[in-house]
Amino acid sequence: MTPQNGPDSVVAALAASARSALDAARVAMRDVAAAGLSAPGPLDHETGVVLTTQNIEGFVDADFPIAARLAGELDGPPVFLDRDTVMAAIGEGTIGAAQGIRDFVYLTVSTGVGGAIVSGGRMIRGATNTAGELGHFPVGFDTNVRCRCRSYGCVEAYASGRNLAEAFGVADASIVYAKAAAGDARAIVLIGRAEAALASLAVGIVNALNPERIVVGGSIAEHEPAHVLAPMRQAIAERAFKVPAAAVSVVPSALRGDVSIIGSALAARDRANGEGRWFL
Amino acid sequence: MTPQNGPDSVVAALAASARSALDAARVAMRDVAAAGLSAPGPLDHETGVVLTTQNIEGFVDADFPIAARLAGELDGPPVFLDRDTVMAAIGEGTIGAAQGIRDFVYLTVSTGVGGAIVSGGRMIRGATNTAGELGHFPVGFDTNVRCRCRSYGCVEAYASGRNLAEAFGVADASIVYAKAAAGDARAIVLIGRAEAALASLAVGIVNALNPERIVVGGSIAEHEPAHVLAPMRQAIAERAFKVPAAAVSVVPSALRGDVSIIGSALAARDRANGEGRWFL
Repeated sequence: MTPQNGPDSVVAALAASARSALDAARVAMRDVAAAGLSAPGPLDHETGVVLTTQNIEGFVDADFPIAARLAGELDGPPVFLDRDTVMAAIGEGTIGAAQGIRDFVYLTVSTGVGGAIVSGGRMIRGATNTAGELGHFPVGFDTNVRCRCRSYGCVEAYASGRNLAEAFGVADASIVYAKAAAGDARAIVLIGRAEAALASLAVGIVNALNPERIVVGGSIAEHEPAHVLAPMRQAIAERAFKVPAAAVSVVPSALRGDVSIIGSALAARDRANGEGRWFL
Repeated sequence: MTPQNGPDSVVAALAASARSALDAARVAMRDVAAAGLSAPGPLDHETGVVLTTQNIEGFVDADFPIAARLAGELDGPPVFLDRDTVMAAIGEGTIGAAQGIRDFVYLTVSTGVGGAIVSGGRMIRGATNTAGELGHFPVGFDTNVRCRCRSYGCVEAYASGRNLAEAFGVADASIVYAKAAAGDARAIVLIGRAEAALASLAVGIVNALNPERIVVGGSIAEHEPAHVLAPMRQAIAERAFKVPAAAVSVVPSALRGDVSIIGSALAARDRANGEGRWFL
Protein backbone atom coordinates (compact mmCIF):
# COMPACT_ATOMS: atom_id res chain seq x y z
CA MET A 1 0.00 0.00 0.00
CA THR A 2 1.20 3.51 -0.83
CA PRO A 3 1.49 5.59 2.37
CA GLN A 4 -1.14 8.32 2.44
CA ASN A 5 0.59 10.73 4.82
CA GLY A 6 2.78 12.70 2.48
CA PRO A 7 5.76 12.47 0.15
CA ASP A 8 8.38 11.84 2.86
CA SER A 9 6.63 8.66 3.86
CA VAL A 10 6.34 7.61 0.23
CA VAL A 11 10.09 8.08 -0.30
CA ALA A 12 10.87 6.15 2.90
CA ALA A 13 8.58 3.30 1.82
CA LEU A 14 10.15 3.21 -1.65
CA ALA A 15 13.65 3.06 -0.16
CA ALA A 16 12.64 0.32 2.27
CA SER A 17 11.09 -1.64 -0.59
CA ALA A 18 14.26 -1.28 -2.68
CA ARG A 19 16.47 -2.41 0.20
CA SER A 20 14.22 -5.37 0.88
CA ALA A 21 14.38 -6.41 -2.79
CA LEU A 22 18.17 -6.12 -2.77
CA ASP A 23 18.38 -8.20 0.42
CA ALA A 24 16.19 -10.89 -1.11
CA ALA A 25 18.41 -10.94 -4.22
CA ARG A 26 21.60 -10.76 -2.09
CA VAL A 27 22.77 -7.70 -4.03
CA ALA A 28 24.57 -4.74 -2.45
CA MET A 29 23.35 -1.21 -3.13
CA ARG A 30 26.82 -0.24 -4.41
CA ASP A 31 26.49 -2.86 -7.17
CA VAL A 32 23.32 -1.28 -8.53
CA ALA A 33 24.02 0.93 -11.55
CA ALA A 34 20.63 2.62 -11.79
CA ALA A 35 17.13 2.52 -10.36
CA GLY A 36 13.87 3.07 -12.22
CA LEU A 37 10.84 4.61 -10.59
CA SER A 38 7.38 4.64 -12.08
CA ALA A 39 4.58 6.85 -10.82
CA PRO A 40 1.21 8.07 -11.97
CA GLY A 41 1.43 11.35 -13.85
CA PRO A 42 1.71 14.18 -14.31
CA LEU A 43 5.43 14.30 -13.86
CA ASP A 44 8.61 15.48 -15.54
CA HIS A 45 10.64 12.46 -16.51
CA GLU A 46 13.70 14.58 -17.38
CA THR A 47 13.96 16.29 -13.99
CA GLY A 48 12.41 13.48 -11.95
CA VAL A 49 9.78 15.74 -10.46
CA VAL A 50 6.23 14.60 -9.74
CA LEU A 51 4.15 17.64 -10.63
CA THR A 52 1.02 16.74 -8.75
CA THR A 53 -1.14 13.67 -8.43
CA GLN A 54 -4.75 13.13 -7.65
CA ASN A 55 -4.15 9.63 -6.34
CA ILE A 56 -1.75 9.98 -3.42
CA GLU A 57 -2.46 12.12 -0.40
CA GLY A 58 0.08 14.88 0.10
CA PHE A 59 1.09 15.17 -3.55
CA VAL A 60 -1.78 17.44 -4.52
CA ASP A 61 -0.72 20.76 -6.01
CA ALA A 62 2.87 20.30 -4.88
CA ASP A 63 5.78 19.63 -7.22
CA PHE A 64 8.02 17.08 -5.59
CA PRO A 65 11.54 16.03 -6.74
CA ILE A 66 10.88 12.38 -5.99
CA ALA A 67 13.74 10.92 -8.06
CA ALA A 68 16.39 13.08 -6.37
CA ARG A 69 14.86 12.50 -2.95
CA LEU A 70 14.80 8.74 -3.42
CA ALA A 71 18.36 8.77 -4.78
CA GLY A 72 19.43 10.63 -1.64
CA GLU A 73 17.61 8.17 0.56
CA LEU A 74 19.17 5.17 -1.22
CA ASP A 75 22.61 6.78 -1.12
CA GLY A 76 23.59 4.83 -4.21
CA PRO A 77 22.39 4.64 -7.78
CA PRO A 78 20.78 7.44 -9.77
CA VAL A 79 16.99 7.18 -9.95
CA PHE A 80 15.13 7.62 -13.22
CA LEU A 81 11.47 8.55 -13.05
CA ASP A 82 8.73 8.08 -15.61
CA ARG A 83 4.98 7.54 -15.78
CA ASP A 84 3.83 4.00 -15.03
CA THR A 85 2.21 3.55 -18.44
CA VAL A 86 5.26 4.97 -20.20
CA MET A 87 7.46 2.50 -18.31
CA ALA A 88 5.08 -0.26 -19.38
CA ALA A 89 5.34 0.81 -23.02
CA ILE A 90 9.14 0.86 -22.71
CA GLY A 91 8.97 -2.69 -21.38
CA GLU A 92 6.66 -3.96 -24.12
CA GLY A 93 8.58 -2.07 -26.80
CA THR A 94 11.97 -3.33 -25.64
CA ILE A 95 11.39 -6.99 -24.81
CA GLY A 96 7.63 -7.51 -24.91
CA ALA A 97 4.65 -7.64 -27.24
CA ALA A 98 5.69 -4.58 -29.26
CA GLN A 99 9.38 -5.37 -29.63
CA GLY A 100 10.80 -3.67 -32.71
CA ILE A 101 7.49 -2.01 -33.61
CA ARG A 102 7.66 1.71 -34.36
CA ASP A 103 3.98 2.56 -34.04
CA PHE A 104 2.17 1.12 -31.07
CA VAL A 105 -0.07 2.01 -28.21
CA TYR A 106 0.16 0.52 -24.74
CA LEU A 107 -3.15 0.47 -22.94
CA THR A 108 -3.80 -0.62 -19.38
CA VAL A 109 -7.29 -1.59 -18.25
CA SER A 110 -6.98 -2.04 -14.53
CA THR A 111 -7.97 -0.01 -11.46
CA GLY A 112 -7.84 2.88 -13.91
CA VAL A 113 -7.45 3.08 -17.67
CA GLY A 114 -4.24 4.61 -18.98
CA GLY A 115 -1.84 4.42 -21.83
CA ALA A 116 1.22 5.52 -23.71
CA ILE A 117 1.70 6.22 -27.41
CA VAL A 118 4.75 5.35 -29.49
CA SER A 119 4.67 6.79 -33.00
CA GLY A 120 7.37 6.69 -35.65
CA GLY A 121 9.64 4.96 -33.16
CA ARG A 122 9.35 7.65 -30.48
CA MET A 123 7.40 8.04 -27.28
CA ILE A 124 4.79 10.75 -27.70
CA ARG A 125 5.32 13.13 -24.79
CA GLY A 126 3.33 16.23 -25.63
CA ALA A 127 4.09 19.77 -24.52
CA THR A 128 4.24 19.00 -20.79
CA ASN A 129 4.87 15.25 -20.65
CA THR A 130 1.29 14.17 -20.03
CA ALA A 131 0.47 12.68 -23.45
CA GLY A 132 -0.94 9.17 -23.55
CA GLU A 133 -3.82 9.49 -21.09
CA LEU A 134 -6.13 7.59 -23.41
CA GLY A 135 -8.36 6.47 -20.56
CA HIS A 136 -9.60 10.03 -20.31
CA PHE A 137 -10.80 10.39 -23.85
CA PRO A 138 -14.53 11.06 -23.46
CA VAL A 139 -16.53 8.45 -25.36
CA GLY A 140 -19.99 9.13 -23.97
CA PHE A 141 -22.10 12.15 -23.16
CA ASP A 142 -23.55 10.83 -19.88
CA THR A 143 -22.80 13.60 -17.40
CA ASN A 144 -23.78 11.24 -14.58
CA VAL A 145 -20.95 8.84 -15.45
CA ARG A 146 -18.45 10.82 -13.42
CA CYS A 147 -14.74 10.26 -13.61
CA ARG A 148 -12.21 10.79 -10.84
CA CYS A 149 -10.39 13.17 -13.21
CA ARG A 150 -13.28 15.68 -12.65
CA SER A 151 -14.76 15.03 -16.11
CA TYR A 152 -17.46 12.60 -17.23
CA GLY A 153 -17.92 10.04 -19.97
CA CYS A 154 -14.23 9.06 -19.98
CA VAL A 155 -13.31 5.53 -21.00
CA GLU A 156 -12.06 5.09 -17.44
CA ALA A 157 -15.41 6.14 -16.00
CA TYR A 158 -17.11 3.28 -17.86
CA ALA A 159 -14.47 0.59 -18.00
CA SER A 160 -12.01 0.79 -15.13
CA GLY A 161 -12.09 -1.81 -12.39
CA ARG A 162 -12.64 0.81 -9.73
CA ASN A 163 -15.50 2.47 -11.57
CA LEU A 164 -17.19 -0.83 -12.39
CA ALA A 165 -16.98 -1.95 -8.75
CA GLU A 166 -18.26 1.40 -7.47
CA ALA A 167 -21.11 1.50 -9.95
CA PHE A 168 -22.23 -1.97 -8.90
CA GLY A 169 -21.60 -1.30 -5.22
CA VAL A 170 -19.02 -3.98 -4.54
CA ALA A 171 -15.36 -4.03 -3.54
CA ASP A 172 -13.91 -5.54 -6.68
CA ALA A 173 -14.72 -5.57 -10.38
CA SER A 174 -14.30 -9.34 -10.55
CA ILE A 175 -17.62 -9.60 -8.72
CA VAL A 176 -19.33 -7.55 -11.42
CA TYR A 177 -17.97 -9.82 -14.16
CA ALA A 178 -19.03 -12.92 -12.19
CA LYS A 179 -22.53 -11.48 -11.63
CA ALA A 180 -22.86 -10.63 -15.32
CA ALA A 181 -21.80 -14.16 -16.26
CA ALA A 182 -24.49 -15.45 -13.88
CA GLY A 183 -27.13 -13.37 -15.64
CA ASP A 184 -27.47 -10.37 -13.31
CA ALA A 185 -29.17 -7.72 -15.46
CA ARG A 186 -27.57 -4.72 -13.80
CA ALA A 187 -24.09 -6.24 -14.07
CA ILE A 188 -24.70 -7.09 -17.72
CA VAL A 189 -25.57 -3.47 -18.45
CA LEU A 190 -22.44 -2.20 -16.70
CA ILE A 191 -20.14 -4.69 -18.44
CA GLY A 192 -21.78 -3.94 -21.78
CA ARG A 193 -21.18 -0.25 -21.20
CA ALA A 194 -17.54 -0.93 -20.34
CA GLU A 195 -17.13 -2.98 -23.51
CA ALA A 196 -18.72 -0.24 -25.60
CA ALA A 197 -16.34 2.35 -24.12
CA LEU A 198 -13.30 0.18 -24.84
CA ALA A 199 -14.62 -0.52 -28.34
CA SER A 200 -14.98 3.21 -29.03
CA LEU A 201 -11.51 3.85 -27.66
CA ALA A 202 -10.05 1.14 -29.90
CA VAL A 203 -11.73 2.60 -33.00
CA GLY A 204 -10.60 6.07 -32.05
CA ILE A 205 -7.01 4.98 -31.45
CA VAL A 206 -6.88 3.22 -34.81
CA ASN A 207 -8.37 6.18 -36.70
CA ALA A 208 -6.43 8.89 -34.87
CA LEU A 209 -3.05 7.19 -34.41
CA ASN A 210 -2.88 4.33 -36.91
CA PRO A 211 -0.75 2.04 -34.74
CA GLU A 212 0.59 -1.29 -35.94
CA ARG A 213 -0.16 -2.81 -32.56
CA ILE A 214 -2.23 -2.11 -29.47
CA VAL A 215 -0.82 -3.91 -26.44
CA VAL A 216 -3.40 -4.25 -23.70
CA GLY A 217 -2.30 -4.87 -20.13
CA GLY A 218 -3.79 -4.41 -16.68
CA SER A 219 -5.63 -6.78 -14.38
CA ILE A 220 -9.04 -6.41 -16.03
CA ALA A 221 -7.60 -7.08 -19.48
CA GLU A 222 -5.64 -10.05 -18.15
CA HIS A 223 -8.58 -11.67 -16.37
CA GLU A 224 -11.36 -10.71 -18.75
CA PRO A 225 -9.89 -10.71 -22.28
CA ALA A 226 -13.26 -11.67 -23.77
CA HIS A 227 -14.67 -8.43 -22.34
CA VAL A 228 -11.67 -6.24 -23.20
CA LEU A 229 -9.57 -7.38 -26.16
CA ALA A 230 -12.40 -9.16 -27.99
CA PRO A 231 -14.77 -6.16 -28.22
CA MET A 232 -11.85 -3.93 -29.17
CA ARG A 233 -10.92 -6.25 -32.04
CA GLN A 234 -14.51 -6.61 -33.20
CA ALA A 235 -15.10 -2.86 -33.20
CA ILE A 236 -11.92 -2.19 -35.14
CA ALA A 237 -12.90 -4.76 -37.76
CA GLU A 238 -16.44 -3.43 -38.06
CA ARG A 239 -16.10 0.29 -37.55
CA ALA A 240 -12.56 1.66 -38.02
CA PHE A 241 -11.20 2.99 -41.31
CA LYS A 242 -10.24 0.00 -43.42
CA VAL A 243 -6.59 0.83 -44.13
CA PRO A 244 -5.55 1.37 -40.49
CA ALA A 245 -7.87 -1.45 -39.34
CA ALA A 246 -6.03 -3.87 -41.63
CA ALA A 247 -2.68 -2.68 -40.27
CA VAL A 248 -3.30 -3.17 -36.54
CA SER A 249 -3.39 -6.09 -34.15
CA VAL A 250 -4.68 -6.02 -30.57
CA VAL A 251 -2.60 -8.27 -28.33
CA PRO A 252 -2.28 -8.91 -24.60
CA SER A 253 0.66 -7.59 -22.64
CA ALA A 254 3.59 -10.00 -22.75
CA LEU A 255 5.01 -8.76 -19.44
CA ARG A 256 1.66 -8.81 -17.64
CA GLY A 257 1.59 -7.73 -14.01
CA ASP A 258 5.30 -6.88 -13.98
CA VAL A 259 5.20 -4.72 -17.08
CA SER A 260 5.83 -1.37 -15.36
CA ILE A 261 8.51 -2.80 -13.06
CA ILE A 262 10.36 -4.45 -15.95
CA GLY A 263 9.94 -1.33 -18.05
CA SER A 264 11.33 0.78 -15.20
CA ALA A 265 14.40 -1.42 -14.93
CA LEU A 266 14.97 -1.28 -18.69
CA ALA A 267 14.45 2.48 -18.74
CA ALA A 268 16.89 2.97 -15.85
CA ARG A 269 19.49 0.75 -17.55
CA ASP A 270 19.21 2.62 -20.86
CA ARG A 271 19.09 6.10 -19.35
CA ALA A 272 22.11 5.41 -17.14
CA ASN A 273 23.94 4.35 -20.30
CA GLY A 274 22.86 7.49 -22.13
CA GLU A 275 20.67 5.41 -24.42
CA GLY A 276 16.94 5.05 -24.78
CA ARG A 277 16.47 8.20 -26.80
CA TRP A 278 13.39 6.73 -28.45
CA PHE A 279 11.43 6.97 -25.26
CA LEU A 280 12.78 10.25 -23.91
CA MET B 1 -16.35 20.40 -58.50
CA THR B 2 -14.32 17.19 -58.49
CA PRO B 3 -15.18 15.06 -61.56
CA GLN B 4 -17.03 11.92 -60.52
CA ASN B 5 -16.23 9.76 -63.54
CA GLY B 6 -12.90 8.26 -62.55
CA PRO B 7 -9.27 9.08 -61.86
CA ASP B 8 -8.35 10.04 -65.43
CA SER B 9 -10.90 12.84 -65.38
CA VAL B 10 -9.64 13.98 -61.99
CA VAL B 11 -6.05 14.18 -63.29
CA ALA B 12 -7.19 16.07 -66.38
CA ALA B 13 -9.15 18.53 -64.25
CA LEU B 14 -6.19 19.03 -61.91
CA ALA B 15 -3.86 19.70 -64.84
CA ALA B 16 -6.34 22.13 -66.40
CA SER B 17 -6.71 23.93 -63.08
CA ALA B 18 -2.92 24.19 -62.72
CA ARG B 19 -2.53 25.55 -66.26
CA SER B 20 -5.30 28.05 -65.67
CA ALA B 21 -3.63 29.26 -62.48
CA LEU B 22 -0.29 29.61 -64.25
CA ASP B 23 -1.94 31.55 -67.08
CA ALA B 24 -3.59 33.90 -64.62
CA ALA B 25 -0.25 34.44 -62.88
CA ARG B 26 1.59 34.73 -66.23
CA VAL B 27 4.04 32.01 -65.20
CA ALA B 28 5.37 29.33 -67.55
CA MET B 29 5.24 25.68 -66.52
CA ARG B 30 9.01 25.38 -67.03
CA ASP B 31 9.54 28.01 -64.32
CA VAL B 32 7.69 25.96 -61.72
CA ALA B 33 10.07 24.03 -59.47
CA ALA B 34 7.52 21.81 -57.75
CA ALA B 35 3.79 21.26 -57.38
CA GLY B 36 1.91 20.23 -54.26
CA LEU B 37 -1.23 18.14 -54.37
CA SER B 38 -3.54 17.57 -51.44
CA ALA B 39 -6.17 14.88 -51.36
CA PRO B 40 -8.37 13.15 -48.83
CA GLY B 41 -6.76 10.04 -47.39
CA PRO B 42 -5.82 7.31 -47.25
CA LEU B 43 -2.76 7.81 -49.37
CA ASP B 44 0.97 7.26 -49.39
CA HIS B 45 2.70 10.63 -49.36
CA GLU B 46 6.10 9.08 -50.09
CA THR B 47 5.04 7.31 -53.28
CA GLY B 48 2.29 9.73 -54.27
CA VAL B 49 -0.31 6.99 -54.44
CA VAL B 50 -3.91 7.48 -53.40
CA LEU B 51 -4.80 4.17 -51.78
CA THR B 52 -8.57 4.46 -51.96
CA THR B 53 -11.10 7.08 -51.13
CA GLN B 54 -14.68 6.99 -50.09
CA ASN B 55 -15.35 10.49 -51.38
CA ILE B 56 -14.57 10.45 -55.09
CA GLU B 57 -16.24 8.10 -57.52
CA GLY B 58 -13.79 5.79 -59.29
CA PHE B 59 -11.18 5.81 -56.52
CA VAL B 60 -12.85 3.13 -54.44
CA ASP B 61 -10.66 0.11 -53.71
CA ALA B 62 -8.12 1.09 -56.37
CA ASP B 63 -4.63 2.34 -55.64
CA PHE B 64 -3.86 5.16 -58.01
CA PRO B 65 -0.46 6.85 -58.59
CA ILE B 66 -2.00 10.29 -58.79
CA ALA B 67 1.21 12.30 -58.22
CA ALA B 68 3.11 10.56 -61.03
CA ARG B 69 0.09 10.73 -63.33
CA LEU B 70 -0.39 14.44 -62.73
CA ALA B 71 3.35 15.07 -63.18
CA GLY B 72 3.15 13.28 -66.52
CA GLU B 73 0.12 15.33 -67.53
CA LEU B 74 1.80 18.60 -66.54
CA ASP B 75 5.02 17.60 -68.31
CA GLY B 76 6.96 19.82 -65.94
CA PRO B 77 7.55 19.95 -62.21
CA PRO B 78 7.53 17.01 -59.83
CA VAL B 79 4.27 16.63 -57.90
CA PHE B 80 4.23 16.01 -54.14
CA LEU B 81 1.13 14.46 -52.63
CA ASP B 82 -0.15 14.57 -49.08
CA ARG B 83 -3.42 14.47 -47.18
CA ASP B 84 -5.37 17.72 -47.16
CA THR B 85 -5.28 18.04 -43.38
CA VAL B 86 -1.56 17.23 -43.29
CA MET B 87 -0.95 19.95 -45.88
CA ALA B 88 -2.99 22.31 -43.71
CA ALA B 89 -0.89 21.44 -40.65
CA ILE B 90 2.28 22.04 -42.69
CA GLY B 91 0.90 25.45 -43.64
CA GLU B 92 -0.06 26.41 -40.08
CA GLY B 93 3.18 25.00 -38.68
CA THR B 94 5.39 26.76 -41.22
CA ILE B 95 3.87 30.23 -41.54
CA GLY B 96 0.55 30.11 -39.67
CA ALA B 97 -0.98 29.82 -36.23
CA ALA B 98 1.39 27.07 -35.06
CA GLN B 99 4.62 28.50 -36.40
CA GLY B 100 7.57 27.19 -34.41
CA ILE B 101 5.38 25.05 -32.15
CA ARG B 102 6.52 21.44 -31.73
CA ASP B 103 3.32 19.97 -30.33
CA PHE B 104 0.13 20.95 -32.06
CA VAL B 105 -3.01 19.59 -33.61
CA TYR B 106 -4.65 20.94 -36.71
CA LEU B 107 -8.37 20.35 -36.77
CA THR B 108 -10.77 21.15 -39.58
CA VAL B 109 -14.48 21.48 -38.92
CA SER B 110 -16.02 21.81 -42.33
CA THR B 111 -17.95 19.52 -44.68
CA GLY B 112 -16.23 16.80 -42.69
CA VAL B 113 -14.11 16.83 -39.56
CA GLY B 114 -10.45 15.92 -39.95
CA GLY B 115 -7.07 16.64 -38.53
CA ALA B 116 -3.35 16.14 -38.33
CA ILE B 117 -1.10 15.70 -35.31
CA VAL B 118 2.36 17.16 -34.83
CA SER B 119 4.15 15.88 -31.75
CA GLY B 120 7.71 16.52 -30.65
CA GLY B 121 8.24 18.53 -33.84
CA ARG B 122 7.20 15.74 -36.18
CA MET B 123 4.10 14.88 -38.14
CA ILE B 124 2.47 11.78 -36.67
CA ARG B 125 1.99 9.39 -39.59
CA GLY B 126 1.21 6.04 -38.05
CA ALA B 127 1.94 2.65 -39.54
CA THR B 128 0.20 3.26 -42.88
CA ASN B 129 0.05 7.07 -43.14
CA THR B 130 -3.53 7.48 -41.98
CA ALA B 131 -2.93 8.95 -38.51
CA GLY B 132 -4.70 12.18 -37.62
CA GLU B 133 -8.29 11.28 -38.48
CA LEU B 134 -9.55 12.86 -35.28
CA GLY B 135 -13.00 13.45 -36.71
CA HIS B 136 -13.58 9.75 -36.51
CA PHE B 137 -12.93 9.32 -32.84
CA PRO B 138 -16.23 8.02 -31.48
CA VAL B 139 -17.54 10.33 -28.76
CA GLY B 140 -21.08 9.02 -28.41
CA PHE B 141 -22.78 5.65 -28.28
CA ASP B 142 -25.78 6.57 -30.46
CA THR B 143 -25.82 3.87 -33.13
CA ASN B 144 -28.36 5.91 -35.06
CA VAL B 145 -25.91 8.79 -35.51
CA ARG B 146 -24.35 7.16 -38.55
CA CYS B 147 -21.11 8.36 -40.08
CA ARG B 148 -20.11 8.14 -43.72
CA CYS B 149 -17.04 6.21 -42.57
CA ARG B 150 -19.38 3.24 -41.80
CA SER B 151 -19.18 3.76 -38.04
CA TYR B 152 -21.41 5.76 -35.69
CA GLY B 153 -20.96 8.29 -32.95
CA CYS B 154 -17.92 9.89 -34.62
CA VAL B 155 -17.26 13.56 -33.99
CA GLU B 156 -17.90 14.07 -37.70
CA ALA B 157 -21.30 12.41 -37.47
CA TYR B 158 -22.40 15.00 -34.90
CA ALA B 159 -20.48 18.10 -35.90
CA SER B 160 -19.64 18.21 -39.59
CA GLY B 161 -21.43 20.63 -41.87
CA ARG B 162 -22.69 17.85 -44.08
CA ASN B 163 -24.05 15.81 -41.20
CA LEU B 164 -25.70 18.81 -39.55
CA ALA B 165 -27.38 19.79 -42.81
CA GLU B 166 -28.52 16.23 -43.50
CA ALA B 167 -29.84 15.74 -39.98
CA PHE B 168 -31.87 18.94 -40.23
CA GLY B 169 -32.92 18.23 -43.82
CA VAL B 170 -31.43 21.28 -45.51
CA ALA B 171 -28.73 21.89 -48.09
CA ASP B 172 -26.27 23.77 -45.91
CA ALA B 173 -25.28 23.81 -42.25
CA SER B 174 -25.47 27.60 -42.15
CA ILE B 175 -29.24 27.22 -42.22
CA VAL B 176 -29.14 25.03 -39.12
CA TYR B 177 -27.08 27.60 -37.23
CA ALA B 178 -29.43 30.38 -38.34
CA LYS B 179 -32.49 28.37 -37.28
CA ALA B 180 -30.92 27.63 -33.90
CA ALA B 181 -30.16 31.31 -33.42
CA ALA B 182 -33.80 32.05 -34.22
CA GLY B 183 -34.94 29.62 -31.53
CA ASP B 184 -35.82 26.51 -33.55
CA ALA B 185 -35.86 23.72 -30.97
CA ARG B 186 -34.72 20.95 -33.30
CA ALA B 187 -31.83 23.04 -34.62
CA ILE B 188 -30.81 23.93 -31.08
CA VAL B 189 -30.63 20.24 -30.18
CA LEU B 190 -28.50 19.45 -33.23
CA ILE B 191 -26.12 22.36 -32.65
CA GLY B 192 -25.87 21.49 -28.96
CA ARG B 193 -24.98 17.93 -29.91
CA ALA B 194 -22.33 19.18 -32.35
CA GLU B 195 -20.86 21.40 -29.65
CA ALA B 196 -20.82 18.52 -27.17
CA ALA B 197 -19.00 16.31 -29.70
CA LEU B 198 -16.38 18.98 -30.37
CA ALA B 199 -16.03 19.59 -26.64
CA SER B 200 -15.39 15.90 -26.01
CA LEU B 201 -12.89 15.80 -28.86
CA ALA B 202 -11.05 18.80 -27.44
CA VAL B 203 -10.82 17.22 -23.98
CA GLY B 204 -9.69 13.94 -25.50
CA ILE B 205 -7.04 15.60 -27.64
CA VAL B 206 -5.67 17.50 -24.65
CA ASN B 207 -5.58 14.42 -22.42
CA ALA B 208 -4.27 12.00 -25.04
CA LEU B 209 -1.86 14.23 -26.96
CA ASN B 210 -1.03 17.18 -24.69
CA PRO B 211 -0.57 19.70 -27.51
CA GLU B 212 0.59 23.26 -26.92
CA ARG B 213 -1.88 24.51 -29.51
CA ILE B 214 -5.00 23.33 -31.30
CA VAL B 215 -5.47 25.21 -34.58
CA VAL B 216 -9.05 24.99 -35.79
CA GLY B 217 -9.85 25.63 -39.43
CA GLY B 218 -12.65 24.79 -41.81
CA SER B 219 -15.73 26.70 -42.90
CA ILE B 220 -17.87 25.83 -39.87
CA ALA B 221 -15.12 26.88 -37.47
CA GLU B 222 -14.55 30.08 -39.42
CA HIS B 223 -18.20 31.10 -39.57
CA GLU B 224 -19.36 29.79 -36.21
CA PRO B 225 -16.44 30.19 -33.77
CA ALA B 226 -18.84 30.62 -30.85
CA HIS B 227 -20.18 27.13 -31.59
CA VAL B 228 -16.81 25.51 -32.31
CA LEU B 229 -13.80 27.12 -30.62
CA ALA B 230 -15.72 28.47 -27.62
CA PRO B 231 -17.18 25.13 -26.44
CA MET B 232 -13.81 23.47 -27.04
CA ARG B 233 -12.07 26.04 -24.84
CA GLN B 234 -14.71 25.83 -22.15
CA ALA B 235 -14.60 22.03 -22.01
CA ILE B 236 -10.81 21.99 -21.81
CA ALA B 237 -10.88 24.48 -18.93
CA GLU B 238 -13.60 22.59 -17.06
CA ARG B 239 -12.90 18.94 -17.83
CA ALA B 240 -9.39 18.22 -19.11
CA PHE B 241 -6.45 17.28 -16.88
CA LYS B 242 -5.15 20.47 -15.34
CA VAL B 243 -1.50 20.30 -16.44
CA PRO B 244 -2.20 19.79 -20.17
CA ALA B 245 -5.22 22.13 -19.99
CA ALA B 246 -2.97 24.92 -18.72
CA ALA B 247 -0.49 24.25 -21.52
CA VAL B 248 -2.83 24.47 -24.50
CA SER B 249 -4.52 27.24 -26.45
CA VAL B 250 -7.28 26.80 -29.03
CA VAL B 251 -6.89 29.26 -31.88
CA PRO B 252 -8.45 29.80 -35.29
CA SER B 253 -6.56 28.92 -38.46
CA ALA B 254 -4.37 31.79 -39.62
CA LEU B 255 -4.47 30.67 -43.26
CA ARG B 256 -8.23 30.07 -43.28
CA GLY B 257 -9.76 28.85 -46.53
CA ASP B 258 -6.42 28.65 -48.30
CA VAL B 259 -4.70 26.63 -45.62
CA SER B 260 -4.38 23.37 -47.58
CA ILE B 261 -3.35 25.14 -50.78
CA ILE B 262 -0.70 27.19 -49.02
CA GLY B 263 0.44 24.12 -47.11
CA SER B 264 0.69 22.17 -50.36
CA ALA B 265 2.86 24.86 -51.92
CA LEU B 266 5.12 24.97 -48.86
CA ALA B 267 5.34 21.18 -48.74
CA ALA B 268 6.21 21.00 -52.44
CA ARG B 269 8.87 23.68 -52.04
CA ASP B 270 10.48 21.95 -49.07
CA ARG B 271 10.28 18.44 -50.49
CA ALA B 272 11.75 19.55 -53.82
CA ASN B 273 14.62 21.03 -51.81
CA GLY B 274 15.08 17.83 -49.82
CA GLU B 275 13.87 19.62 -46.70
CA GLY B 276 10.72 19.35 -44.65
CA ARG B 277 11.80 16.25 -42.75
CA TRP B 278 9.63 17.25 -39.80
CA PHE B 279 6.48 16.54 -41.72
CA LEU B 280 7.59 13.48 -43.69
